[in-house]
Amino acid sequence: MATRELAAFVSASRRDDIPEAVRHEAGRAILNWLGCAIAGCRDDAVERLVAVLRNFSGPPQATLLGRGGRFDALTAACVNAVASNRLDFDDTHLRTVIHPTVPVASALLALAEYRPMSGADFAHAFILGVDAECRIGNAVSTAHYERGWHITSTCGVLGAAVACAKALALDAQHTAWAIGIAATQASGLTEMLGSMSKCYNMGHAARNGLAAALLAARGFTSSERALEAPRGFLNVLGTDADASEITRGLGSRWELMANAYKPYPCGIVIHPVIDACLDLRAKHTIDPARIARVEITVNPLAEKLCGNKAPADGLQAKLSLYHSAAVALLRGEAGVAEYEDACVNDPAVVALRGRIGVTTDPAVGKEQARVRVVLAEGGAHELFVEKARGSLERPMSDDELAAKFRSLAAAELESPAIERLIGQCRALSDLPDAGVIARGSVP
Amino acid sequence: MATRELAAFVSASRRDDIPEAVRHEAGRAILNWLGCAIAGCRDDAVERLVAVLRNFSGPPQATLLGRGGRFDALTAACVNAVASNRLDFDDTHLRTVIHPTVPVASALLALAEYRPMSGADFAHAFILGVDAECRIGNAVSTAHYERGWHITSTCGVLGAAVACAKALALDAQHTAWAIGIAATQASGLTEMLGSMSKCYNMGHAARNGLAAALLAARGFTSSERALEAPRGFLNVLGTDADASEITRGLGSRWELMANAYKPYPCGIVIHPVIDACLDLRAKHTIDPARIARVEITVNPLAEKLCGNKAPADGLQAKLSLYHSAAVALLRGEAGVAEYEDACVNDPAVVALRGRIGVTTDPAVGKEQARVRVVLAEGGAHELFVEKARGSLERPMSDDELAAKFRSLAAAELESPAIERLIGQCRALSDLPDAGVIARGSVP
Repeated sequence: MATRELAAFVSASRRDDIPEAVRHEAGRAILNWLGCAIAGCRDDAVERLVAVLRNFSGPPQATLLGRGGRFDALTAACVNAVASNRLDFDDTHLRTVIHPTVPVASALLALAEYRPMSGADFAHAFILGVDAECRIGNAVSTAHYERGWHITSTCGVLGAAVACAKALALDAQHTAWAIGIAATQASGLTEMLGSMSKCYNMGHAARNGLAAALLAARGFTSSERALEAPRGFLNVLGTDADASEITRGLGSRWELMANAYKPYPCGIVIHPVIDACLDLRAKHTIDPARIARVEITVNPLAEKLCGNKAPADGLQAKLSLYHSAAVALLRGEAGVAEYEDACVNDPAVVALRGRIGVTTDPAVGKEQARVRVVLAEGGAHELFVEKARGSLERPMSDDELAAKFRSLAAAELESPAIERLIGQCRALSDLPDAGVIARGSVP
Repeated sequence: MATRELAAFVSASRRDDIPEAVRHEAGRAILNWLGCAIAGCRDDAVERLVAVLRNFSGPPQATLLGRGGRFDALTAACVNAVASNRLDFDDTHLRTVIHPTVPVASALLALAEYRPMSGADFAHAFILGVDAECRIGNAVSTAHYERGWHITSTCGVLGAAVACAKALALDAQHTAWAIGIAATQASGLTEMLGSMSKCYNMGHAARNGLAAALLAARGFTSSERALEAPRGFLNVLGTDADASEITRGLGSRWELMANAYKPYPCGIVIHPVIDACLDLRAKHTIDPARIARVEITVNPLAEKLCGNKAPADGLQAKLSLYHSAAVALLRGEAGVAEYEDACVNDPAVVALRGRIGVTTDPAVGKEQARVRVVLAEGGAHELFVEKARGSLERPMSDDELAAKFRSLAAAELESPAIERLIGQCRALSDLPDAGVIARGSVP
């Protein structure tokens, strides 16, 4: 009954049911996401995607964030999802490793431009969409991702559908159909990590989730047990999934509150390693030329997801513990510039990468890392990171998120436009028309 | 290496490499598919889909078969796939239960209107697409479908991508990317059977396969091992998949030759039961009122897929052994009219359905059935069907396919237009422009 129960909860939810802290978090998530979309909007993958999809786009209903121009809402949802995930700088629901905002917000903001809605309704729908997305993710974790499912895509299409269903004010039955239509489009392989298709997984999730809600609204029928049925999502894409995760504590526990923001634009499991390297460098003023070798100890998942020793380009570098540690030690930075091709092929970076060794230890948590820098003249510096920056226990502050947004948005916007967007996201629930943040993202 | 090997084969294939018998079969498959699309084009699911998608469609690049009007090629591919699958009258690759033509032809014909191609090139690309689709299906069968994957959708997106990649003359690397982009969109749950979303599975497969080829053509990158990698299609969506099925005998064995056409618009595993009922009725002139009960013995798969005892509407009836047997015995027909709501709710049909029992026996093949009609006054008639009509061993002839097309196309077209389309499909490889069959499907 998970599908019907979730659908009934979503359709019955009222704005006042959402605690203030959760609404505040929605603004933080949207600001963080919008910065990623603006900074990613000129990426080569986005350019190629736009070059193809412009030939098939319908009426100019929704803004291409940052870059400007308008596509039909479905196509804009796809493009914006790809752009906002491209830098790997978006948020993370740590339990599932879902990047919750990308598919949900990309679909919902495109819908908000097509069918204007208040910021309060937008935030409400967004919160419900992320909640559904992450709860379904909880139900299938961790076997689902381990099997090779790109969970942000597979669960993202469901979250996008739920958010859009709410924004369209669908009743319980039609919301259940939206969930069903989304479930049967759930796809995305982690095999795509390292190629442009990784981000495309977000694009089709956003597009298809929005389409699911629009079709359901028109009475296009689906299973009403699409999640829990023997041949439904949980059983077909999951292994020993726990359907009760979807409905337990609905309305009292909000998964958006378990969302974290990245200080570095790379795989989140790398972050504690970067923290350690930056802190070691700052504390001991290490001369990179004097480093004999670097010994890193991480949770096995970090090595599994990000074990690329010799990344060929920026895209691969985002999933490389070795590259990330090298730039943090060499440059004292791990920002967007450190994951561009030029830096990845910098001989000094390449040389240091080659002196890094990684050991795995299940006793080291996913948000932890131990880094030991052994010096050429003998001696070593070691540091253990207990909780990574940006983790739930050590979250980025509102000011840190604003600073991150400024650095990302500066690629396209002048300061007044940037500050206006920060203000609008902080006061998301007060906006008469949520679509202003899309239009305001364009110079 | 399955992905690269398949991609290399497809990109190197020349028209002359295709045996004449295979090219002839392509025309049969396209004719059968086109009839299904025309007859299905006014279905309620198609109406609802069109009502939504018309708001987002781009330029009028490709025809909505049968009904007329033009959408952008991606959207038209989606609509035409839904329409052509809607009646469950399309073809079947028996080993996998894939309906091969729907996703491949829907994508390819939309592309052929967007970028005109000769009938010979169309047929060539179609044959390669179906070959890839069914070979990948062979590799994952039967565990994949049994798990709940709607195999026509999951493998169809790959077949559509391969066909469109060939039509776009992509080289091996770009074809491999097209396969990868398709693989990461592979989706579709059999839980959708019995709702409109069943056909939508075909729609997104066709659309996404075409999009995959167009993106790859533009240099949008993907994994080049998307099928066989540890986190690729075969391992993530399959169980103990056999990758060698994809490449073994490429160019010497053509899966299109293992394609069968349906004489009845319902689940193919029901067909031998209908054969038996029609033959019993004809042979013994059975008065339905005198039937005490009907005992049917089928392969377990038939009962599993089509065990609905009390279908509520025509859609559900297509997956009901009980309904199909009842109409065949009562009316001596199992055509489109027998799967419309009116017939499903006919009291006489309902009454006879209630007197039918189904037993399963693994010793009865999937194309076999035993039917025993027990009469009220005592006595019984029994018949065992060894090979169903339309099976590979008892295929529909060219004339039977033309007759089927005439009955289907009559819903929209006058006789001259119908005969012209039959002629064009029979001489598919001689057409200067394959798109004429799309435009000719409209009054």
